[in-house]
Amino acid sequence: MLVAEGLEGVAAFETGLSCIDGDEGRIMYREYPAEELQHNRNFEEVAYLLWYGKWPAADKLEEFQRILAARRFLPRHVKLTLDQLPEEVDMMSVLQTAVSALKDCESVWPPSWEQASGIVSKIPAIIAHRRARLEGREAVEPRLDLNHTANYLYMLFGKEPSDSQRQMLETYLVLTQELGSNPSTFTARVVASTRSDLISSTSAAIGALKGTLHGGAPAEVLEMLREIGCPERAEGWIREALECDRRIMGFGHRIFKSRDPRSDMLKALALRHAPEHPLLKLAVSVEETAHRLLEEYKPGRQLVTNVDYYASVVLHIVGLDESLFTPTFAVSRCVGWCAHIMEQAVHNRLIYPQAIYRSEIQKRRPDTWFGHALAGRAGEVLAPEVVL
Amino acid sequence: MLVAEGLEGVAAFETGLSCIDGDEGRIMYREYPAEELQHNRNFEEVAYLLWYGKWPAADKLEEFQRILAARRFLPRHVKLTLDQLPEEVDMMSVLQTAVSALKDCESVWPPSWEQASGIVSKIPAIIAHRRARLEGREAVEPRLDLNHTANYLYMLFGKEPSDSQRQMLETYLVLTQELGSNPSTFTARVVASTRSDLISSTSAAIGALKGTLHGGAPAEVLEMLREIGCPERAEGWIREALECDRRIMGFGHRIFKSRDPRSDMLKALALRHAPEHPLLKLAVSVEETAHRLLEEYKPGRQLVTNVDYYASVVLHIVGLDESLFTPTFAVSRCVGWCAHIMEQAVHNRLIYPQAIYRSEIQKRRPDTWFGHALAGRAGEVLAPEVVL
Repeated sequence: MLVAEGLEGVAAFETGLSCIDGDEGRIMYREYPAEELQHNRNFEEVAYLLWYGKWPAADKLEEFQRILAARRFLPRHVKLTLDQLPEEVDMMSVLQTAVSALKDCESVWPPSWEQASGIVSKIPAIIAHRRARLEGREAVEPRLDLNHTANYLYMLFGKEPSDSQRQMLETYLVLTQELGSNPSTFTARVVASTRSDLISSTSAAIGALKGTLHGGAPAEVLEMLREIGCPERAEGWIREALECDRRIMGFGHRIFKSRDPRSDMLKALALRHAPEHPLLKLAVSVEETAHRLLEEYKPGRQLVTNVDYYASVVLHIVGLDESLFTPTFAVSRCVGWCAHIMEQAVHNRLIYPQAIYRSEIQKRRPDTWFGHALAGRAGEVLAPEVVL
Repeated sequence: MLVAEGLEGVAAFETGLSCIDGDEGRIMYREYPAEELQHNRNFEEVAYLLWYGKWPAADKLEEFQRILAARRFLPRHVKLTLDQLPEEVDMMSVLQTAVSALKDCESVWPPSWEQASGIVSKIPAIIAHRRARLEGREAVEPRLDLNHTANYLYMLFGKEPSDSQRQMLETYLVLTQELGSNPSTFTARVVASTRSDLISSTSAAIGALKGTLHGGAPAEVLEMLREIGCPERAEGWIREALECDRRIMGFGHRIFKSRDPRSDMLKALALRHAPEHPLLKLAVSVEETAHRLLEEYKPGRQLVTNVDYYASVVLHIVGLDESLFTPTFAVSRCVGWCAHIMEQAVHNRLIYPQAIYRSEIQKRRPDTWFGHALAGRAGEVLAPEVVL
């Protein structure tokens, strides 16, 4: 038996939810290309498509939106839990804890549509509640007359979003709901395959999304763009980074080898809504420079911008600060997690790979196992890629 | 690309932590067979072996025990969180939530030995605190002069355990610390591979351990034994179950095909400490009958008792009720999770399998996706196996 390190090239399951063509840079939700979803489809419609396998009729959509809206309110014990977690705890850990705390006495198996809609409805409320308390103000209660995206922005900022804000965030949330067996979705399926419940599976997935090689990257893109500061400094900064083998954030993807279609769509979205925004101008310029220099330093690798790159720009223009980037990714991706958990449940097969014993693994580094030695070692290792 | 359903037969990583020979029914922690671990080695010694790769010298063991003991105390906000979760929430969901709430401002990556020892030390305290509050009494604070196992029992029952209780639980906890890439450990590694932190990874693993195809099974064994009631009823009960294609709990394992060595060792342990215990006598009798009838109904399948079977007997004799079986499994397995997370971190490669798109998956069952239809379908499906 050979080891498929990182499970690269191994298909872990079949899915009817999305079709990802990494070589061509194409994404389909069910049988619809991502390009068709981004216009005139809102968060709820696309969630309905993923969950039910077809677009909703008008009355079905209205019912679906009403059900989701009614489930936005947080139980009292979840609010109290949110208020007690120390201030310095990062929002993704808070979200993982609060989602896990949503467990009630509902049946554990099989996962239900009720549980899934509860999770999707409450994640924005958890983020907004925590955010308000960190800012020392009362949390804003959800409004039933706003759709999912508008209500999220309303709860965060305490006022209705502009059309442009809402549309930009809607497109981002639609384009990031689903992406096959990415690590957080795969985590959700592994947990669900033990016949654990949907809430435990989703909480686990949040833990995976948090990692900087997965959902934690957009904030690092923004930090990099801020460090570069202006288009004129791009060439020097990137050249130095490449010389020192430091990562250029927002470039390269495990699955998308030639182009990440979400990056293109988010870039076009930002150009449509805020063509003069200084961060966008900087990002476009840095992208051009980075492509040129990456081709020079790593010829043939085709390291193009991934979804993180323009997601960071779009979310910044919408008005979110970087501590909300990854949590907002969870607002959308939880739709895909739930769909995958339900799909896994229908014909469940426990996900249980093997491991190969190699006694040398320990013997190679008897004293570098813990503490300083490990910290030093890991600090030196450059992450090869980031995925979303 | 072929789909390796359930990842059966695929090796996802290399490990120096344990060597599992499923065909021969052998387990080694590092280079030591499980049979050698079960006598005269306590929880802390075996954890040290897994984490450091060698047995501790006397002074090192003392230091290790002192560090672990000092970390048993729960932060105030975790206690408050435990007190607020609704009473009807199951202990594993409580544990997943409370472990996630342990997140503090410690660095996220790489995982540290400090975080690992904190998790291992605090899981028993979380269980004992919650348990006390459910019983309407004050939680018992940890004692520093007791070892890990004795202190767990002390916190649960408010008095020091007998030698026999402590020894039985010690052996159980030693034998279940580690088992290669079982689903909860695999979950921990997938989450950690995104560069998420040790606490998020461990919380996620708890979600997987909870499933009835994984750590949730011993309670079901006890329920089955209680249903059977006496040796004379075993043949009738099992024959009926087999005729109706119902599962016989505690038999069969994904990895161990001929024998699960932990089952043999736990059986011998129970026979040594409580040979006259009625549950043990019943279990031995049911085992004999079940083996005979399984060979008759499913010839050649070699469905022998797995670890769950005699674990349920041992934990019952120790004095734990079934709601504590899976949480107590987490008390031991968290050692393996932490060791695997650290191993993953040293040479990390993001775990990201692929998925194969099949539009028929949706088309085959357009209206059975959610709600009643799914519940009905899953209810009919018999779980093929249980693993620990």
